Amino acid sequence: MKPFTGTFPAVVTQMRQDQSIDLDACANHWEAVIESGVSGLIVCGSLGENQTLLPDEKRTVVQHAVAIAAGRVPVLSGVAESSTRAAISYLHDCEKLGVSGFMIMPPMVYKSDPRETMHWFRTLAKSTALPWMLYNNPVGYHTDVTPEQFTELSDVPNLTAIKESSANTRRITELRNLTADRYAIFTGVDDLFLESAILGIDGWVAGSGIAFPKENQQLWDLSRAGRWDEARVLYRWSQPLMKLDTHIHFVQYIKLLCQETGLGTEWVREPRLPLAGTEREHVLNIIRDALATRPRS
Amino acid sequence: MKPFTGTFPAVVTQMRQDQSIDLDACANHWEAVIESGVSGLIVCGSLGENQTLLPDEKRTVVQHAVAIAAGRVPVLSGVAESSTRAAISYLHDCEKLGVSGFMIMPPMVYKSDPRETMHWFRTLAKSTALPWMLYNNPVGYHTDVTPEQFTELSDVPNLTAIKESSANTRRITELRNLTADRYAIFTGVDDLFLESAILGIDGWVAGSGIAFPKENQQLWDLSRAGRWDEARVLYRWSQPLMKLDTHIHFVQYIKLLCQETGLGTEWVREPRLPLAGTEREHVLNIIRDALATRPRS
Amino acid sequence: MKPFTGTFPAVVTQMRQDQSIDLDACANHWEAVIESGVSGLIVCGSLGENQTLLPDEKRTVVQHAVAIAAGRVPVLSGVAESSTRAAISYLHDCEKLGVSGFMIMPPMVYKSDPRETMHWFRTLAKSTALPWMLYNNPVGYHTDVTPEQFTELSDVPNLTAIKESSANTRRITELRNLTADRYAIFTGVDDLFLESAILGIDGWVAGSGIAFPKENQQLWDLSRAGRWDEARVLYRWSQPLMKLDTHIHFVQYIKLLCQETGLGTEWVREPRLPLAGTEREHVLNIIRDALATRPRS
Amino acid sequence: MKPFTGTFPAVVTQMRQDQSIDLDACANHWEAVIESGVSGLIVCGSLGENQTLLPDEKRTVVQHAVAIAAGRVPVLSGVAESSTRAAISYLHDCEKLGVSGFMIMPPMVYKSDPRETMHWFRTLAKSTALPWMLYNNPVGYHTDVTPEQFTELSDVPNLTAIKESSANTRRITELRNLTADRYAIFTGVDDLFLESAILGIDGWVAGSGIAFPKENQQLWDLSRAGRWDEARVLYRWSQPLMKLDTHIHFVQYIKLLCQETGLGTEWVREPRLPLAGTEREHVLNIIRDALATRPRS
Repeated sequence: MKPFTGTFPAVVTQMRQDQSIDLDACANHWEAVIESGVSGLIVCGSLGENQTLLPDEKRTVVQHAVAIAAGRVPVLSGVAESSTRAAISYLHDCEKLGVSGFMIMPPMVYKSDPRETMHWFRTLAKSTALPWMLYNNPVGYHTDVTPEQFTELSDVPNLTAIKESSANTRRITELRNLTADRYAIFTGVDDLFLESAILGIDGWVAGSGIAFPKENQQLWDLSRAGRWDEARVLYRWSQPLMKLDTHIHFVQYIKLLCQETGLGTEWVREPRLPLAGTEREHVLNIIRDALATRPRS
Repeated sequence: MKPFTGTFPAVVTQMRQDQSIDLDACANHWEAVIESGVSGLIVCGSLGENQTLLPDEKRTVVQHAVAIAAGRVPVLSGVAESSTRAAISYLHDCEKLGVSGFMIMPPMVYKSDPRETMHWFRTLAKSTALPWMLYNNPVGYHTDVTPEQFTELSDVPNLTAIKESSANTRRITELRNLTADRYAIFTGVDDLFLESAILGIDGWVAGSGIAFPKENQQLWDLSRAGRWDEARVLYRWSQPLMKLDTHIHFVQYIKLLCQETGLGTEWVREPRLPLAGTEREHVLNIIRDALATRPRS
Repeated sequence: MKPFTGTFPAVVTQMRQDQSIDLDACANHWEAVIESGVSGLIVCGSLGENQTLLPDEKRTVVQHAVAIAAGRVPVLSGVAESSTRAAISYLHDCEKLGVSGFMIMPPMVYKSDPRETMHWFRTLAKSTALPWMLYNNPVGYHTDVTPEQFTELSDVPNLTAIKESSANTRRITELRNLTADRYAIFTGVDDLFLESAILGIDGWVAGSGIAFPKENQQLWDLSRAGRWDEARVLYRWSQPLMKLDTHIHFVQYIKLLCQETGLGTEWVREPRLPLAGTEREHVLNIIRDALATRPRS
Repeated sequence: MKPFTGTFPAVVTQMRQDQSIDLDACANHWEAVIESGVSGLIVCGSLGENQTLLPDEKRTVVQHAVAIAAGRVPVLSGVAESSTRAAISYLHDCEKLGVSGFMIMPPMVYKSDPRETMHWFRTLAKSTALPWMLYNNPVGYHTDVTPEQFTELSDVPNLTAIKESSANTRRITELRNLTADRYAIFTGVDDLFLESAILGIDGWVAGSGIAFPKENQQLWDLSRAGRWDEARVLYRWSQPLMKLDTHIHFVQYIKLLCQETGLGTEWVREPRLPLAGTEREHVLNIIRDALATRPRS
């Protein structure tokens, strides 16, 4: 029985213009996401600006999310550290704060080789009793865990899920051919959702959908029901919004998107800056065009 | 009414060990492909080793294909030339030989910029009255025709189809959102077939499937019938074979695959060499593993 | 005794606005280049638009160059063919036309693997008695000949020179450490000339310098004389012009540069188009800025 | 008057097998480096494993280096943080610890765009009164500061030096043509040292040379004296060792190199692992071959 399946959106960390964390705004947003019917919540992922939060702040966000979810859905924390030692401390602290599991990334900054990558994930897995999802994103983090490596990792008992964000959908079929149903396979690439769903997946770490949670959940439900023609229509509508998730400014884009749908604000933590000039206008146009044709529920 | 839809396999040019063209072997292979129920045949594409055939040889292959098809299915020729002048000559000669249309590639060797690319395709389009398919493969040929450029090209009357081989399935949804049904969209990437089919396509320029034409046609038919669960099973089986189409040695791999299924030989034209050593063993193992689990018809 | 050392500029093929070859303009330009003191002349290279010339045209250009040079300097022809068979024909025909040797490129279009690349060069080497230079340009042609492969090729007697255009100057030191003085090493990257010269080279296949042959030859001579401080001053002046040689539009840029210095015209053969709009203005500004500060001779 | 010129080696952080920092081993190594005649010392750079040191550890290393140098040479600290807030804290703490300046990197993890990059460097510059060197390494850190951006940054008074590690030596000439002598230009790429030196540089952030400090300093001195032929001989000898600095495992390689020359040990901090198997053998062979032909002093 896999502990994690279904939609597990990765949420942003809402901030004020002065870059401080706005826990009330976080709560409002998370409520809307939970109410849409998601299966779980992921905080402190890439979209949550993990790498710019100070150690204490990350723990505060996690604690707050556990309190808000209040057992309705499991809360996972992203783990994005640059040293093994810091990662283990983080796992231990989050366990005490009551998370249900983790979404663990490869080491930050250093591009570990396959031997080091396997060592990293095995060492971290041993440091916690909780189930976890391996976040594979070689495009963003330059470290790749191949289907062959996932075959090797089959003996790690608490590694129960894969977030496949290689942007190479072939990986899903390769994983199924090599590991059958050993892992819950999540896609982590919004604008490859339908392509991934048809191949047979168990879950979705949605990004841009946190700004339009109802449609996002509906798209997932249509795919589970095999209502592919309806899913395709909804997917074509949402594509311009989903593409906001795969740009290098995806945090800024999705925060702006949340602002436009009334679920947050656009403020980010430095070194990120809020969008400006023609880029902000361009993204706003994409958002407003999409919202103008939003399907009636 | 679009002149080209359905499966249009791109076939190899069968050769003898001395690198001469074996027209009888071509005829045998093409017959098997036509009998599987394809909608058309493409000769002298990349898989047909267009760029290593001498000018006279290309024309001989085209003439032979038209004679073998004998009106049962349309025959298209790939157009892969490095100068505008040579490309126009080729279009004119093929028209006289009786082809039904073309699959036109960007200029070979030179990486044309967007202005030059548009000029190339418009100039060639004006040089023939026949319908043609634009083969977009920025991975293989370093020139990209974007969805925005396809919108601009909507006024070219005989450009009726797109072979989308960017390996970025997002392009299909982008094209549908921008150009609706203006073009017949073909996928040209075997191992992204199912991902492409779910998005809504009109055709498939199959590659590796020329070695197992029945299953290939069956996969296409299942997708058209919306029998996605069965399609997924067949797709997972065929993936290792389909991946042979996206390696830099795809010509050698697919010719070896044809040899193993009894539809041809592995001989290629230099500068290509037949596979050797561990690489040949590796590919043979993939092929034999797949054939051992071939679904019963 | 190495047959080729010193400056061997690769010249453009002068054309008229209607894209036909202008042999008189070629003659004028080649005269100016020869008079500047070069050690040899290379026609029908990349800069000579080899790949867009028809087979007969290439041979005409070669014949004309041999006649113009009239024994004053050796004439080499570039060899840029996509099949082994066509390349061998070309070698034979050029021998009869009186060239002194060749600058041979890897196969065009097909990205040969190391085994195929070695086979290609060995097969072509056996087809001619003339000395030749291997043109290694993995940036432009996607096929790389490594220093280790050059060590293996040491037993090919008529392979006497390397045109190193990997844009990785480390290669020169690696070649010297591995093959000492077995090969005459030419650099083929104008805007890495000084970096290459300090490492110890034997020659230079100059590109942009065909538009300002006197300064180009002077830069070479300063480097041979160990007058590095003067060379650096001249190199800094020429850098903006030399960078025109490493853009994807290098043919258009250098033809425009020749036009501005009175040594030719900007017309090119399709699929290339003459520069237009802001790009043309930008390049003209670079050229005019450089010419305004041209050192007095 | 530029505060930093000459050789400023970036040193490793010596560790024990249990991954703890070995301050005594650091002191021994730093003494050897200082005695070779360097102009300064850089700790907590990439080679110093900055990103895997805990916040307190970095400060301890800096404090220790200032004590060991004891005013003989300036000590700089690398600044490699992923948030602006953490970077400013680090600058303030190091000031109190007595450093003479900084080598500041772009944000870690996040790939800032040009606007954000400029904001990052300007914000950090304002936070300290000390002079600093901007470390530009788009190959390693995916953020590029172009010569045009350096022109813009000319008004930042304490930005006095550039560590150019783009591995594109053209940048040095471009910087000289655009900014003349505004900045002290250091090369940070060992195996492009001679190519960089001939173009006119002010300093060298040496890496592999910390394992053979005498020869490294000698190479620098020869280049300053214009004794290029002798420099070339020494450079050819050292190239295999210098190439150890540009591999993804450069920390492990250079620590192993230090171990072989008696100046340290190979232990690294996780997620890095010490080298193993054929890779370790391969690197040891390179090192031992080079040491066997070490020039007599």
